[in-house]
Amino acid sequence: MIHQLEVKTRGKGLYPFTREVAQWVASKKIATGLLTIFIQHTSASLVIQENADPDVTLDLADFFERLAPEDDPHYRHTTEGPDDMPAHIRSALTQTSLSIPVMDGRMALGTWQGIYVFEHRSGPQRRNVVLHLLG
Amino acid sequence: MIHQLEVKTRGKGLYPFTREVAQWVASKKIATGLLTIFIQHTSASLVIQENADPDVTLDLADFFERLAPEDDPHYRHTTEGPDDMPAHIRSALTQTSLSIPVMDGRMALGTWQGIYVFEHRSGPQRRNVVLHLLG
Amino acid sequence: MIHQLEVKTRGKGLYPFTREVAQWVASKKIATGLLTIFIQHTSASLVIQENADPDVTLDLADFFERLAPEDDPHYRHTTEGPDDMPAHIRSALTQTSLSIPVMDGRMALGTWQGIYVFEHRSGPQRRNVVLHLLG
Repeated sequence: MIHQLEVKTRGKGLYPFTREVAQWVASKKIATGLLTIFIQHTSASLVIQENADPDVTLDLADFFERLAPEDDPHYRHTTEGPDDMPAHIRSALTQTSLSIPVMDGRMALGTWQGIYVFEHRSGPQRRNVVLHLLG
Repeated sequence: MIHQLEVKTRGKGLYPFTREVAQWVASKKIATGLLTIFIQHTSASLVIQENADPDVTLDLADFFERLAPEDDPHYRHTTEGPDDMPAHIRSALTQTSLSIPVMDGRMALGTWQGIYVFEHRSGPQRRNVVLHLLG
Repeated sequence: MIHQLEVKTRGKGLYPFTREVAQWVASKKIATGLLTIFIQHTSASLVIQENADPDVTLDLADFFERLAPEDDPHYRHTTEGPDDMPAHIRSALTQTSLSIPVMDGRMALGTWQGIYVFEHRSGPQRRNVVLHLLG
């Protein structure tokens, strides 16, 4: 089973969408299976991160800002704006796809795990995510 | 099919558990399939790395220690200890899930590939890993 | 269904092989499914990246060259050459496996997404990649 959803972002940062995914999985009434989450972009990515203290996702975004900064003079690819090449690097360092087992009808996430779109561009975007569920 | 296992860790570093996974896969007598390995934490992660020279995993752990150090004054999230925010960063840079095809009844690993829990916290932990096998 | 392919590399850099994968998937005539791509190495990896401007993959390779340089005196593991330990690090920072949903008989890639082997060794290599398709 396939489901497509759109995550609207408003600049760099992590956007949780665990609830939307969980609701779709629950609606499928599958006891045991495998969920795949795939983002159809190379300047935004996926991460599973702590869902408790919001400082964690702020610190995480800041770390990637320092690791692959906008103003690096090494970049050749600058025509799409100063945030584009760092966005590709940050995407390569995180995930384009996630695989999550389904147990007892729900994702087998740990207590503190949330699912996020990690937006790497500065402007607002609509990010397309494909969910695939095997029962 | 689902299986849950616990990997006990004793501080930062890489802990191999290829054998436990291989034994479970072998017991299922599936010729061709797909194995998913999922760790239910955001301060420990999964990596596939060289299983021959133990210096590789030591160097790898050291690299991450330098890349996301404990004493970075930028971190907001410090209440869970100096090792916690670096642990989240290192998890985001590595894997929460791994997908490994099964061929001829066993994981299609290369000769030098081993499966590791990458522990990012300083103290001992019990890490929950979920295995899912589709035949 | 399983398929094995070999990607020949000629030194560090990103080598596209989207077409080979797409052709195999198309030949299987599966409307909806899940494709897994697995590389059987720890000194080369997989990434999904932009397929339009070739400067992106050049900049990406350069970034990893700076992030995990060859001449880092911290490395213990040096017997396989100065490019080997950086290769393991760069592999750990990118992907050993990718999961891509199949919709309408083809991979659900975004418009700008291409699939690459990311070669981290200096010399020519033959890299073994396993494709697994569930329908």
